[in-house]
Amino acid sequence: MNQVVLIYSGGLDTSVCIPMMTEDYGFDHIVTVTVDVGQPEEDITMAAEKAARFGTEHYTVDAKDEFARDYCFPAVRANAMYQGGYPVSTSIARPLIALKAVEVAQKVGAKAFAHGCTGKGNDQLRIEFIVRTLLPDARIVAPMREKNMTRTEEIEYARVKNVPIGQSAEKIWSIDENLWGRSIEGGRLEEPDFAPPEEIFRWTAGPQEAPNTPETVVVRFENGNPVAINGKSMDPLTLIREAHNLAGKNGVGRIDVMEDRMLGLKVRENYECPAAILLYTAHAALEALVFTKDERDFKRVVDAKWADLAYAGLWIDPLKHDLDAFIDKTQERVTGEVILRLFKGGISVIGRRSPFALYNEDLASFDSKTWDQRDGEALCKAYGMQARMAAQLNIG
Amino acid sequence: MNQVVLIYSGGLDTSVCIPMMTEDYGFDHIVTVTVDVGQPEEDITMAAEKAARFGTEHYTVDAKDEFARDYCFPAVRANAMYQGGYPVSTSIARPLIALKAVEVAQKVGAKAFAHGCTGKGNDQLRIEFIVRTLLPDARIVAPMREKNMTRTEEIEYARVKNVPIGQSAEKIWSIDENLWGRSIEGGRLEEPDFAPPEEIFRWTAGPQEAPNTPETVVVRFENGNPVAINGKSMDPLTLIREAHNLAGKNGVGRIDVMEDRMLGLKVRENYECPAAILLYTAHAALEALVFTKDERDFKRVVDAKWADLAYAGLWIDPLKHDLDAFIDKTQERVTGEVILRLFKGGISVIGRRSPFALYNEDLASFDSKTWDQRDGEALCKAYGMQARMAAQLNIG
Amino acid sequence: MNQVVLIYSGGLDTSVCIPMMTEDYGFDHIVTVTVDVGQPEEDITMAAEKAARFGTEHYTVDAKDEFARDYCFPAVRANAMYQGGYPVSTSIARPLIALKAVEVAQKVGAKAFAHGCTGKGNDQLRIEFIVRTLLPDARIVAPMREKNMTRTEEIEYARVKNVPIGQSAEKIWSIDENLWGRSIEGGRLEEPDFAPPEEIFRWTAGPQEAPNTPETVVVRFENGNPVAINGKSMDPLTLIREAHNLAGKNGVGRIDVMEDRMLGLKVRENYECPAAILLYTAHAALEALVFTKDERDFKRVVDAKWADLAYAGLWIDPLKHDLDAFIDKTQERVTGEVILRLFKGGISVIGRRSPFALYNEDLASFDSKTWDQRDGEALCKAYGMQARMAAQLNIG
Amino acid sequence: MNQVVLIYSGGLDTSVCIPMMTEDYGFDHIVTVTVDVGQPEEDITMAAEKAARFGTEHYTVDAKDEFARDYCFPAVRANAMYQGGYPVSTSIARPLIALKAVEVAQKVGAKAFAHGCTGKGNDQLRIEFIVRTLLPDARIVAPMREKNMTRTEEIEYARVKNVPIGQSAEKIWSIDENLWGRSIEGGRLEEPDFAPPEEIFRWTAGPQEAPNTPETVVVRFENGNPVAINGKSMDPLTLIREAHNLAGKNGVGRIDVMEDRMLGLKVRENYECPAAILLYTAHAALEALVFTKDERDFKRVVDAKWADLAYAGLWIDPLKHDLDAFIDKTQERVTGEVILRLFKGGISVIGRRSPFALYNEDLASFDSKTWDQRDGEALCKAYGMQARMAAQLNIG
Repeated sequence: MNQVVLIYSGGLDTSVCIPMMTEDYGFDHIVTVTVDVGQPEEDITMAAEKAARFGTEHYTVDAKDEFARDYCFPAVRANAMYQGGYPVSTSIARPLIALKAVEVAQKVGAKAFAHGCTGKGNDQLRIEFIVRTLLPDARIVAPMREKNMTRTEEIEYARVKNVPIGQSAEKIWSIDENLWGRSIEGGRLEEPDFAPPEEIFRWTAGPQEAPNTPETVVVRFENGNPVAINGKSMDPLTLIREAHNLAGKNGVGRIDVMEDRMLGLKVRENYECPAAILLYTAHAALEALVFTKDERDFKRVVDAKWADLAYAGLWIDPLKHDLDAFIDKTQERVTGEVILRLFKGGISVIGRRSPFALYNEDLASFDSKTWDQRDGEALCKAYGMQARMAAQLNIG
Repeated sequence: MNQVVLIYSGGLDTSVCIPMMTEDYGFDHIVTVTVDVGQPEEDITMAAEKAARFGTEHYTVDAKDEFARDYCFPAVRANAMYQGGYPVSTSIARPLIALKAVEVAQKVGAKAFAHGCTGKGNDQLRIEFIVRTLLPDARIVAPMREKNMTRTEEIEYARVKNVPIGQSAEKIWSIDENLWGRSIEGGRLEEPDFAPPEEIFRWTAGPQEAPNTPETVVVRFENGNPVAINGKSMDPLTLIREAHNLAGKNGVGRIDVMEDRMLGLKVRENYECPAAILLYTAHAALEALVFTKDERDFKRVVDAKWADLAYAGLWIDPLKHDLDAFIDKTQERVTGEVILRLFKGGISVIGRRSPFALYNEDLASFDSKTWDQRDGEALCKAYGMQARMAAQLNIG
Repeated sequence: MNQVVLIYSGGLDTSVCIPMMTEDYGFDHIVTVTVDVGQPEEDITMAAEKAARFGTEHYTVDAKDEFARDYCFPAVRANAMYQGGYPVSTSIARPLIALKAVEVAQKVGAKAFAHGCTGKGNDQLRIEFIVRTLLPDARIVAPMREKNMTRTEEIEYARVKNVPIGQSAEKIWSIDENLWGRSIEGGRLEEPDFAPPEEIFRWTAGPQEAPNTPETVVVRFENGNPVAINGKSMDPLTLIREAHNLAGKNGVGRIDVMEDRMLGLKVRENYECPAAILLYTAHAALEALVFTKDERDFKRVVDAKWADLAYAGLWIDPLKHDLDAFIDKTQERVTGEVILRLFKGGISVIGRRSPFALYNEDLASFDSKTWDQRDGEALCKAYGMQARMAAQLNIG
Repeated sequence: MNQVVLIYSGGLDTSVCIPMMTEDYGFDHIVTVTVDVGQPEEDITMAAEKAARFGTEHYTVDAKDEFARDYCFPAVRANAMYQGGYPVSTSIARPLIALKAVEVAQKVGAKAFAHGCTGKGNDQLRIEFIVRTLLPDARIVAPMREKNMTRTEEIEYARVKNVPIGQSAEKIWSIDENLWGRSIEGGRLEEPDFAPPEEIFRWTAGPQEAPNTPETVVVRFENGNPVAINGKSMDPLTLIREAHNLAGKNGVGRIDVMEDRMLGLKVRENYECPAAILLYTAHAALEALVFTKDERDFKRVVDAKWADLAYAGLWIDPLKHDLDAFIDKTQERVTGEVILRLFKGGISVIGRRSPFALYNEDLASFDSKTWDQRDGEALCKAYGMQARMAAQLNIG
């Protein structure tokens, strides 16, 4: 049996791949895999229904808990913002989707692998990195990349091959969704100076429509992981959804950035990441309370590199594991609470507390007992000595 | 004549220094210098009046234009945020104040220098760094540091010595202001989990009180410097004031951070920096449009170091000059416009354009002509090769 | 006229390209360009002779002075060691070779470009980066990459096509040479644990054969550029050759490293870079004398990035220009002399002096006058305060 | 009982402290602690004898094994070179000495602590950091710092107080020794351009006197720790001594650098660190074989910071622990062998092998099977795209 595993979202691109698998690539058995990382439930259902109509061997893998706990929470611990602004929401889902599809391939004994990524984007690199690592001998086929079809050609192909495509033909925007974020691309949004219209947003209230009273939210962390919101403990998936709701209804989480893709293309991207923005903001504020100055400085370097690797889909890269070890060590003291205020698109930290605070009353009084202001003079005399020497040499 | 130059703000600390200069330190001629970097005009006037009552030789130096152009704008070009959150507003004024006071000392031929800084803070280091560099043989006296007086003792001393102190005795909060920002310290604000009360803010509207309609602002940059707002060209000082007003009235510019001082104390700080936040936000968005990915990554490293040096008051440090050379080179292409939306405390970028954009239609079409999606396969085959080898060795 | 410019070394790879240009690629006029960056003179002559036999329009471009002054010396100022060990000797010649060939193409009006690089190596990327930047519409052909021929097939092809190949068929090692270094690859040298045999070295004496008496060398720098050796001023090319001779005869300059190529392949490389090692060693020692501690720390970061860009052939990358601005600023004070001792493969710094030394007698006495040892106590009290707090919290 | 613990080396500085403890500081019981970290055995014995003559309660703590295993070996794993050149040999002994003395203080119940460090150097900071962390309420006395005595005054004081000082009065050079290195300071050595005379070296043969035949040494590592030399397994202390002997007799390990001390003084330093240089060289070569390119790049950043913290004596700093976690993770694959050649002061790597090599025959053949040279073209087309766009914008 010559079978292939196809990563299947149910959308246009991956749906037209299905007839191609037999007709153009010669496979006689198609296994479709939809990995649930928090996209809309109707997408999951629709994918299963379409797969049934095609007669593929179909698997739906619920990876939501794993995604929340082992992908989103590590991103929080790393304050993972690619280029300082994008919470790597699509990026970190790709390795997990690929890993789950590889597990299916291993289970069914498939030696071939298919995906619907194009040849210009990041996802082909992220997904194939995992597949090529774990199934180094697998044949990989990527019809969208190899056929270079336009959207119109795809729709025509779907019509001819009787591929169910639903309403997708009329879609203006290209959307990707998971627990951690929603990306909106396409059309005039590609123009860097086109203001994003209100209609592209689904998860976040427009600031003008958001409630007229600020909302206070308390997030509790243990070892860098968020564990409770407003005093209520929750498992990771539930907590992310709660953060999502709180931030989203107050208009928090919209992101509009210029993003440099892995192949060098600079693109304009719009995201909605309410849960990520809420949790990152709180987490960073707690780190600022418990870290030494040196830790704050160095972890910013580590976090930036972590975000680069996460964006690049290098989830099982050796350096990624090394950075994780660093981060895990730092998080041992990232325990405590942060108080946030959400209001009409804005989010501010208004308080933070921790048993590991490098500020607290005991230490302050300890400090005031031992600190003799007159020591300041000695410190000033030593301060900047080399720079002063250099200046004198230049003057003299 | 045994004269001393005293950096004089007109406040309690520096006012009680005046009688000490003669009585405790033996100077027979006191020169007071107030440097105007944008603090309230009544403070400048009050300082001159008090100086007249004391009979000091008094100088008011208007350094506002210089501060705007040569201190605030370089901070914009460096996106200078100490620890990622504080726009170094007080920090960068200190070297300028010290430089102007040194100029007065050189003019009057004074060999001694006095300031009112305490022995626990950053300012003693910033100010003495400049003085010790430019006047290496000067005697430096710092009464507040040497006498270790409490506020109550100061007020009693002022009463006895007939030092005019105005209303300052009743002040709860300790305030510092200049063009670039306003800091509010003291009292319960020192507690990291005490929510800052509305009354501490003077420059920014409370988000709930801010206008109910979003305001769109267009900032134009040339070579990294803001040169126009909403199409109107302005000199640096005027432009900063316009940015201040626009951001402030929309509630933008409040900052609440844990800050690590230079001597190791971690403190909670509240700032209002409306102009800085508006201009930084716009500037960073423009850099994201015109920089290569590598430039974005590396300039973040340079900017962080620049902010550290600026915070530390090392304005004439050799490394500072080296970093300036790097930054100036990068800014040659930071020309263009950024469109911002301000609303009830929130600020968002909604558009950006530049003749140096690494995204534009011409290049996109150039690109689309030459980009063959099938090249993606080759890229995937090479991608992450070492990480894949490492994984195979671990598995095998 | 359908003409092509071929970068021509005279070796086997580029010689077999010549008949291909007409037979396989359909060009009717071949322009060959040999750029002299200090490879052996007989190679230059041989290339011209072979070109004459083929009847190509041949250009020999003497770029030695430019290479020395504008490529090797900037590498010295950047202490440019890729991965800490390889002085980017081959790497920095490639952009210059490509630039000179582009100049010929512009002069003769050619619209096509050919090179003999393979598809696994770095050089294709370095050369095409320049060509694609400066001649974005040029057709680029790379026969070695496209035909994927083995060495034996190439030799057979050369025999059939009557391509003069000299002795190259018997060569065991693959050699690349220019002013700045010599690389030796191939055969068992690829095995990371195969000790390099003495026969591969041509520029450096074997340590056992080197003179039995140490040789002292004094290098003088101005603004980071070496300008004199042993008191004798020299132009850049002459100075590099003198450094080459002095280091080479004392066995200095052999390098044996594991190198990560740009496409991810890790290879073992052997180099001889006597001039580079001598000049880098001296230059770094002088920087250590005149830089502040902060400059030393930060320039290491800049230098590492510069070396990465130089290795990658990104000679006209925006970030490269930005880093150059930083480096040029730092080098303003890198003036002075360094004394080296060379002996049987070893090189040591035994002295350094500069008018910009941050150590000198005047400053030392200035220092001793002002430094009060008792200040040490104040410094100790402030030192490591946050780390101590953290430790106490963990203990308590 | 008012007792004090004095860190005691037996040298002049700490010996004159002993009478001061009772006469000037009012202690009635003196506990002296000599910590053996590999200094000459006669120094340990002499210290004990002198202590006996003074009648102190004396402890000799043998910390050699701990120093080798828990201090020197972590330095190897971190390739710890302060400012790229000094293997932190004195630096890392200081925290251990302080820790052992603190243990004695805790055992005897002393509430006061004394050391003989001066007020200009690094050691006061390193030692007091540990003491102030672990015994935050202890009184710390530092007579050398407080009394600011010259050497001549010390000798005169010793004569008057009948302090046995041996030959130390005639010593020209100031020496510090432990397992990991030997520092030589003082006299004309402070002049940066004074060539160090042969007489200052004790551990390393002069290159001209070293054997006339190269010596090959094979070092085996497991998880980053050296475990065998020339096939013979050894415990850490024995292995360091073997490395010391092999390197030292071949003249390897001399270091001559400009060093920036913690308080800003730039000094010239000479060291002999034969074991450190041999083991660092081997270790770095093994990392280059097994690390990915990204790991090599990032670990250089981590190593530099680790070396800074080690130099600064911040052995129990939170960031130090964080970096250790990173390093430990990377070292899991640093297993294998490195072959070195030592000859007349020079050291070269001539081979390396590891089961975790990212180069090996299997992978090479795997690679050659899958690598299609024609893929190179696709890579070249994507390469440097943004830099090319930027160049075109500048040209156009």
